[in-house]
Amino acid sequence: MGRWEPNARERLVRAALELCAEQGYERTTVVEIAERAGLTRSTFFRHFPDKREVLFAGQDILSQLLVDGIAAAPGAATPHELIAAALDAAAEAFPERRRAFGPQLSAVIGGNSELQERRALKTVRLAEAMANALTRRGLPEITAGLTAQLAGFVLNRAYARWSDPKCDRPFGEIAHRELREVRETLGTLGTAVVLP
Amino acid sequence: MGRWEPNARERLVRAALELCAEQGYERTTVVEIAERAGLTRSTFFRHFPDKREVLFAGQDILSQLLVDGIAAAPGAATPHELIAAALDAAAEAFPERRRAFGPQLSAVIGGNSELQERRALKTVRLAEAMANALTRRGLPEITAGLTAQLAGFVLNRAYARWSDPKCDRPFGEIAHRELREVRETLGTLGTAVVLP
Repeated sequence: MGRWEPNARERLVRAALELCAEQGYERTTVVEIAERAGLTRSTFFRHFPDKREVLFAGQDILSQLLVDGIAAAPGAATPHELIAAALDAAAEAFPERRRAFGPQLSAVIGGNSELQERRALKTVRLAEAMANALTRRGLPEITAGLTAQLAGFVLNRAYARWSDPKCDRPFGEIAHRELREVRETLGTLGTAVVLP
Repeated sequence: MGRWEPNARERLVRAALELCAEQGYERTTVVEIAERAGLTRSTFFRHFPDKREVLFAGQDILSQLLVDGIAAAPGAATPHELIAAALDAAAEAFPERRRAFGPQLSAVIGGNSELQERRALKTVRLAEAMANALTRRGLPEITAGLTAQLAGFVLNRAYARWSDPKCDRPFGEIAHRELREVRETLGTLGTAVVLP
């Protein structure tokens, strides 16, 4: 928002993750998060409606990137190409300096059922936002829904892999590999699986 | 549970949906739900841990049916056939007398963000439960995850269609039609979409 608070959102996220790791989510207050980030309580509330939302800051930005990526793809793009376009656009949300956020966030969310529920709703909403963006491009409703579902599946897998502390590849490269693997797997679903 | 409380779960669900429709979710208490169902407060808590859970009673049963359906399918079943097996088993959760539950439930959940979050988590867990059941059959991890995702997608579509007050077809028939449509759509995702 204001130029006098460079990267305020990211600083708040970083501070929140640190504090939650140190003392737990329940005990952490908005005032503490703002202080740790070197910002004020009112700056916090200019960026996030409540303490929970700072943990999901990335989701809203991500949703917008995915939607914009879909909207900006060439008119003749196939659904699979639209997934690739969405993932390419999403890569902007995953710069190197944020790679450690994933495991930190998982540790906080894993211990709190309320946060797990919020995360699940964000996941559902992400797919809905993509489905709407695909529908606006003229895709039939079932195609839009299915494509969005697959994009969400690839995104989750790519994010989990990218967040692995042992991983050093950029998000875009991982996402494309996952998409290829998912497409290959889709081609096998009608084939009998022989059990060992 | 006890034989002296026939259909206690379903009576509690029905009572909860009625009361929430009449006076709203927030104002409805566990004691009122139990009374409307002709049962006691302690019977309520033998079946559900809290007021929210009575609204999601069907989800746990549904999850078990889907998992059992996957486990019981023939050894040589393909992933697509495993989705069909899961949906066939799920049909037991959707007898005619429960058809009206869907719209009633949507009206209650739609007005409450906490309930929307709980529902989203249940949806995510349903897919996880199916993915685990598929992994136990020996499917590769990515195949299991993708198949579960598609099964959840088909299930949601079939449920929405079945719950439509204008619909009079049985769930199993609708689910199979949706599965066919989803499979056909999957085959088109690599094809260019020509915009109008």
